[in-house]
Amino acid sequence: MRLARPLEDLIDQLLKLPTIGPKTAQRLALFILKMPAQEARQLAQSIIDAQEKVFPCPICGFFTDQDPCLICQDQDRESQLLCVVAESSDIIALERSGYRGKYHVLNQSPSLDELDLGALDLTPFIKRLQAEDTKEVILALNPDMDGEILSRFLAAAITQLKIKVTRLAHGLPVGGDIEFADEITLRMAIDGRKEL
Amino acid sequence: MRLARPLEDLIDQLLKLPTIGPKTAQRLALFILKMPAQEARQLAQSIIDAQEKVFPCPICGFFTDQDPCLICQDQDRESQLLCVVAESSDIIALERSGYRGKYHVLNQSPSLDELDLGALDLTPFIKRLQAEDTKEVILALNPDMDGEILSRFLAAAITQLKIKVTRLAHGLPVGGDIEFADEITLRMAIDGRKEL
Repeated sequence: MRLARPLEDLIDQLLKLPTIGPKTAQRLALFILKMPAQEARQLAQSIIDAQEKVFPCPICGFFTDQDPCLICQDQDRESQLLCVVAESSDIIALERSGYRGKYHVLNQSPSLDELDLGALDLTPFIKRLQAEDTKEVILALNPDMDGEILSRFLAAAITQLKIKVTRLAHGLPVGGDIEFADEITLRMAIDGRKEL
Repeated sequence: MRLARPLEDLIDQLLKLPTIGPKTAQRLALFILKMPAQEARQLAQSIIDAQEKVFPCPICGFFTDQDPCLICQDQDRESQLLCVVAESSDIIALERSGYRGKYHVLNQSPSLDELDLGALDLTPFIKRLQAEDTKEVILALNPDMDGEILSRFLAAAITQLKIKVTRLAHGLPVGGDIEFADEITLRMAIDGRKEL
């Protein structure tokens, strides 16, 4: 059936978003139609505002509306400890863990289809390490093939600067079930076992 | 942690939508930040356009950008068969079933928390039935308590006009499993059994 053109347009636009399938897009679109006009305008405006006012922090790459971002401004953080992540969303997760060092977001980096190490310009990153006299870099990249390759590539560059490089431990997730752990995770959990 | 203000605003706005939880809202917001500016503007504009250009058809209540809607304009439909639904989204589902009569959307009607029969003005609906010389009204309301009460209320009003009232059959969904059917559905499937 043909829906009203503006309704179909809205469904098409919503379908471009991740996690939104055809049924959800239709449900969201019909919900938006029924919203008070004021609320729908706010939703539309917040999309435009976020796009216009938020940018990657020039120092660490985290999404911010201030230059530098709140994390880079924070004097109480361990300034010589730097955690490298692929995406801004990883910082949000790491902050919840209580980590209190600095961050560096690669941003330009690894998508599942193409990891192009050649396109990765490490110059600003290296300069930052030197400027901030970083003592340790924690690599917090996803534990998949691309993350592994990228970790080794970065580790090689960082160790040349005589800076300690570590990476997040692999092992069983807390609350995870040994029975359902994959063999590589289990192997890493065994290799990384700790004395009680 | 505090995110950039416009980013938090966007997450808050997205959280108002159905099916969107905190994790999805965050993921969508970060995705929107990374969209090309042009695409984000299109998304925002489509929300405003849908709100401004789409309205309930004055005849049947279905969302449309034309007066009357495409379904009401369609001369090939059975004009004396009318299907009553609670929401526009129900029409989208019924159209897929191949139904080719007309529709009437109650819209103002039943939410789960409050079914207020007193607030339901049937006058335009009754006038429409008379004007279109409707021969049969199919009640297609959700098979829950509110739908049941509303169906009986509507049936009482419609039969006074000497118009035939039917409702959608209850029974096992096609592909459904008898083992997992609830007892009321099974009882209705038995009561409505058909000879082979």
